[in-house]
Amino acid sequence: MKRLTKFGLGAAVLTALPSLALAQDAAAPGFDEIGPYIMTTLLFCMAGFLVFFMACGFAMLEGGLVRSKNVTMQMTKNIALYSLAAIMYWLIGFNLMYPGDGWIMAGWVGPFFSPTVLDPVGVAAADAALDYASIGSDFFFQLVFVAATASIVSGALAERIKLWPFLVFTILLTGVMYPISGSWQWGGGWLSEMGFSDFAGSTVVHSVGGWAALAGAIVLGPRIGKYSKDGKVIPIPGSNLALATLGTFILWLGWFGFNGGSQLAMGTVGDVSDVSRIFANTNMAAAAGAVTALIMTQAMYKKPDLTMVLNGALAGLVSITAEPLAPSLFGALWIGAIGGVIVVLTVPMLDKMKIDDVVGAIPVHLFAGIWGTIAVVFYNSDANIVTQITGIIAYGVFTFVGSLVLWFIIKAILGLRVSEEDEIAGLDMSELGMEAYPEFSNA
Amino acid sequence: MKRLTKFGLGAAVLTALPSLALAQDAAAPGFDEIGPYIMTTLLFCMAGFLVFFMACGFAMLEGGLVRSKNVTMQMTKNIALYSLAAIMYWLIGFNLMYPGDGWIMAGWVGPFFSPTVLDPVGVAAADAALDYASIGSDFFFQLVFVAATASIVSGALAERIKLWPFLVFTILLTGVMYPISGSWQWGGGWLSEMGFSDFAGSTVVHSVGGWAALAGAIVLGPRIGKYSKDGKVIPIPGSNLALATLGTFILWLGWFGFNGGSQLAMGTVGDVSDVSRIFANTNMAAAAGAVTALIMTQAMYKKPDLTMVLNGALAGLVSITAEPLAPSLFGALWIGAIGGVIVVLTVPMLDKMKIDDVVGAIPVHLFAGIWGTIAVVFYNSDANIVTQITGIIAYGVFTFVGSLVLWFIIKAILGLRVSEEDEIAGLDMSELGMEAYPEFSNA
Amino acid sequence: MKRLTKFGLGAAVLTALPSLALAQDAAAPGFDEIGPYIMTTLLFCMAGFLVFFMACGFAMLEGGLVRSKNVTMQMTKNIALYSLAAIMYWLIGFNLMYPGDGWIMAGWVGPFFSPTVLDPVGVAAADAALDYASIGSDFFFQLVFVAATASIVSGALAERIKLWPFLVFTILLTGVMYPISGSWQWGGGWLSEMGFSDFAGSTVVHSVGGWAALAGAIVLGPRIGKYSKDGKVIPIPGSNLALATLGTFILWLGWFGFNGGSQLAMGTVGDVSDVSRIFANTNMAAAAGAVTALIMTQAMYKKPDLTMVLNGALAGLVSITAEPLAPSLFGALWIGAIGGVIVVLTVPMLDKMKIDDVVGAIPVHLFAGIWGTIAVVFYNSDANIVTQITGIIAYGVFTFVGSLVLWFIIKAILGLRVSEEDEIAGLDMSELGMEAYPEFSNA
Repeated sequence: MKRLTKFGLGAAVLTALPSLALAQDAAAPGFDEIGPYIMTTLLFCMAGFLVFFMACGFAMLEGGLVRSKNVTMQMTKNIALYSLAAIMYWLIGFNLMYPGDGWIMAGWVGPFFSPTVLDPVGVAAADAALDYASIGSDFFFQLVFVAATASIVSGALAERIKLWPFLVFTILLTGVMYPISGSWQWGGGWLSEMGFSDFAGSTVVHSVGGWAALAGAIVLGPRIGKYSKDGKVIPIPGSNLALATLGTFILWLGWFGFNGGSQLAMGTVGDVSDVSRIFANTNMAAAAGAVTALIMTQAMYKKPDLTMVLNGALAGLVSITAEPLAPSLFGALWIGAIGGVIVVLTVPMLDKMKIDDVVGAIPVHLFAGIWGTIAVVFYNSDANIVTQITGIIAYGVFTFVGSLVLWFIIKAILGLRVSEEDEIAGLDMSELGMEAYPEFSNA
Repeated sequence: MKRLTKFGLGAAVLTALPSLALAQDAAAPGFDEIGPYIMTTLLFCMAGFLVFFMACGFAMLEGGLVRSKNVTMQMTKNIALYSLAAIMYWLIGFNLMYPGDGWIMAGWVGPFFSPTVLDPVGVAAADAALDYASIGSDFFFQLVFVAATASIVSGALAERIKLWPFLVFTILLTGVMYPISGSWQWGGGWLSEMGFSDFAGSTVVHSVGGWAALAGAIVLGPRIGKYSKDGKVIPIPGSNLALATLGTFILWLGWFGFNGGSQLAMGTVGDVSDVSRIFANTNMAAAAGAVTALIMTQAMYKKPDLTMVLNGALAGLVSITAEPLAPSLFGALWIGAIGGVIVVLTVPMLDKMKIDDVVGAIPVHLFAGIWGTIAVVFYNSDANIVTQITGIIAYGVFTFVGSLVLWFIIKAILGLRVSEEDEIAGLDMSELGMEAYPEFSNA
Repeated sequence: MKRLTKFGLGAAVLTALPSLALAQDAAAPGFDEIGPYIMTTLLFCMAGFLVFFMACGFAMLEGGLVRSKNVTMQMTKNIALYSLAAIMYWLIGFNLMYPGDGWIMAGWVGPFFSPTVLDPVGVAAADAALDYASIGSDFFFQLVFVAATASIVSGALAERIKLWPFLVFTILLTGVMYPISGSWQWGGGWLSEMGFSDFAGSTVVHSVGGWAALAGAIVLGPRIGKYSKDGKVIPIPGSNLALATLGTFILWLGWFGFNGGSQLAMGTVGDVSDVSRIFANTNMAAAAGAVTALIMTQAMYKKPDLTMVLNGALAGLVSITAEPLAPSLFGALWIGAIGGVIVVLTVPMLDKMKIDDVVGAIPVHLFAGIWGTIAVVFYNSDANIVTQITGIIAYGVFTFVGSLVLWFIIKAILGLRVSEEDEIAGLDMSELGMEAYPEFSNA
């Protein structure tokens, strides 16, 4: 007896369902033809939801590392930036970044924008890109990447930037800047043709977020009380390290999708094995970054520093992102470990330069991102150091200068920073009128 | 050299494993025959664990929106309701909802209940529903849906309802009421035959939860102090907005499974593409709901309201749930955006009616659920507005009246509400004797 | 028009991508040959990321059940133990546990260690283990299991053990002890040959963690203030039950991977159906454990106890882990329910013995693990009670004695316990100099 299930088996319902009808099409192509398409589309869906969840990871990490008086704001920024990125990437970004045959920045020379159009419902095998995946899955997977870029900025500029100016920057970053520079490499543009290699985005995603954050941090200036008049750095502890740890674990989880999905194929023995290889390497790099930061902070400060360990894990992840496939597990270990070293050494360096990066986003995403992009040459014989550095510089100049200009324009028009009084009161009450922990805080 | 792994390759072990034996059966059918079954079973497993995680999302959302003195209770209710729903759905619900050939409410005319029986271990291809999926995966996927319905109720009635009466209602809702009304549509019943269209449950799941919550909120009355004697609404802020945001992100994540899994097939080019299309649309509707609530609260109150933004995202998700496949991305955007509008406008409306819905569950799940069910007609040409409204009313009358009766009966027998003293002290200490944050709260 | 995507279609890029080249290899084997390999590799990747996330679940559960003055430490231990386990399992564990043909503890008689080597990039079908899965996926899946073992220890010994001695134990447990005893069963060793049955590790993983924790708890002694001089047990409430609930839900989620992935195959109708059967049973056992603990604590103490309900769910999960496939749903229900009974009864029993297990890890993982291993005989006719008990005892003696020796050695060399003063001040300030909630705690 067949079970009646949703949409059941009633004839009236069946006819309304092209997908089921298709399944019963006797002339449907076999799995040798459609299997790879199905598997790769599934890969993008699965990797996509994992990377989506990184938006939550960033929110929790940042919410845990700011003071409780700014937590509601950090939550608001993170859910808003993800949502705006999703809309902008549909409206402009996706087709601007992937202009199709002949990389000519079609988005610029053609009509200003062309929103994403998905495959039709129940697309027939004959009309699908059988050697790749469905447009919906590809779009979704690319979309969650751009949101990650914006999240990076949000953490660095926390506790002093106004909501709307930040969101205006997010719109321009995710709708225009990221897609343009992204197209240089992943859209088949000049860096791709030159042989630049960045598997899942140490440079294309992470350093871009880091450069935008650096520009913002410089324009915005440090938080009140972060640097004393005699040049000392005053630590401002995060309000909830359990939340920050949760965020880090969620990001680590999401990274399996971030790097694994970037294999862009799962329908052959080689591809699915590569996806698993990437999982193993990604995990190893994160572990190595965390352990390195643990040992280094023990050695340097006599007490291990949890926030450094969390950022060490993240730096390990960023470091392996440019080439998570080619290295051996040992390669992933030392590449990730150097990521951990970078974080431990550069967090204080930024402070010396009085660049106030609340969550350590610049060391993690920019510095480790540069390292990861260079490290590609050790295991991928198709990469060469000159091209890698060319790419790093190209993304750096474009994003840093572009962001600097945008931040200055936004500052001139809308203002960037809350008043001194509001900053001291906390953005939650001053900007949003709503505390995150109204019953708890003693501060 | 072959690696010895779990269950290894030793002959003694091999013979004990029907599944491995099967794999070596030379006469096993090829992937053209079994591929769709494998993929759809996998879809249900994957979507199932995502929707399972929504139970966690509801717990965190509700735990963040109640006061700290009621957090332990909210956690207890959520893990208990999920667990009871799982047992009841096995015992009665699944076979009551999906009575098989000939929709005659077999559960009523036949023996009162027939617990779910899974496929045998290592089921042979010849014995499996090759055009669908395994019973275990189907059961698990349907089970996590019913739990979502119960979670909706839990949020609306928080901070004043006793534990056991709430759980008794949960048992009756998940074991009897939801399966009966669910069978009208997904079990192949009269609404399905009439052509009612509700892809993943804007009405069948969400509005059902919302109607049950509405009935409960009316019977139960508002929390002490929510409405002043002169008719003013006193805001009662949630105790942990980071937790509420976490919950929202988890729900958003789970919704990819909720809507994507409701494609009920993943083994053809058309089906897997449709799953990905649903992912993209689901994400877009959530983003649009969040952005709409952000802009509207800024415009109406001069300050964006994070709890509205969270509920806006959820309302966007509920709105697209009745038809996440057919709309274009632009369709998903405006359908989700209207969901956001509904939440922002109806939360104060409920308060004017002195219906105290602690987390905004009724606007999100009931009002946006109705909207989503109507919106089907814009993109699905097989749906018509009369049938959609018929379905909405049928579910509304049955669930609202049925719930009202149940709530009154439970109230008469067990009592529903804690004493005034206990409510002021908080349910955690009065009902459970255990605070959620014993070291923190100043309240 | 084909979309240019990441790595695009440019010839220069294509040649650098063995995986894409492979996909276009005309002579590639069909899905009948490679489908099972692809599906099983995917199963390991998917189950692997779910089990990875259990590391986060343990961290949150433990962080919620300790006092706020020890939360930073608990976070540090959890991320560090996972990272160290990952490195040790690569360096020694994997090849020690799975020595390949002829179980002779190759890791001992051969060279001391041989780090894991993955399949080559873009491995050809001819070179892959087509009847199983990729090494990367297998390694990753096994690795996340060993980390779970170490997490169990961390919870039991919280709030008094020093960081580094704990991590040294972790290194030895995950790099040496667990792989040795694991190889007895899953590496094809003597217990496997004897017919011992432990599907996903009630004994091999959970009781091993529990025995190691028990040994540690005995050597370490109870927390200051836990047992009064006149023999009374002083409850020490956890600081954040929302966090503990989050952790439990995450663990429950991860368990679908833990048990489902242990099917070790997903490429046939029988295997994928079995995976789904395992999902349904795993969920049922957890639900039954939770409900049982809810009812029992209501009956015994007049007030339901959330921490018992959480541990009841986990005990249900541990109980079904030795045989999540063979039982019917009713079987899973009563097996899980007895797990819940065990937790409710043995938590106070341990306290009477003045063994201070902060989070209830020993009842959950050891006692319910033993129960689950025995329960195998009720549904798996290939298992017999004598062999099951032999296995339980073998793992118990080896792990308990081995751990006891290790704990004493570590105590002698490094010391295990912080000073009384430091314990009272909390490990966060004394050992790490960093509070988890610097703005909140009143304690």
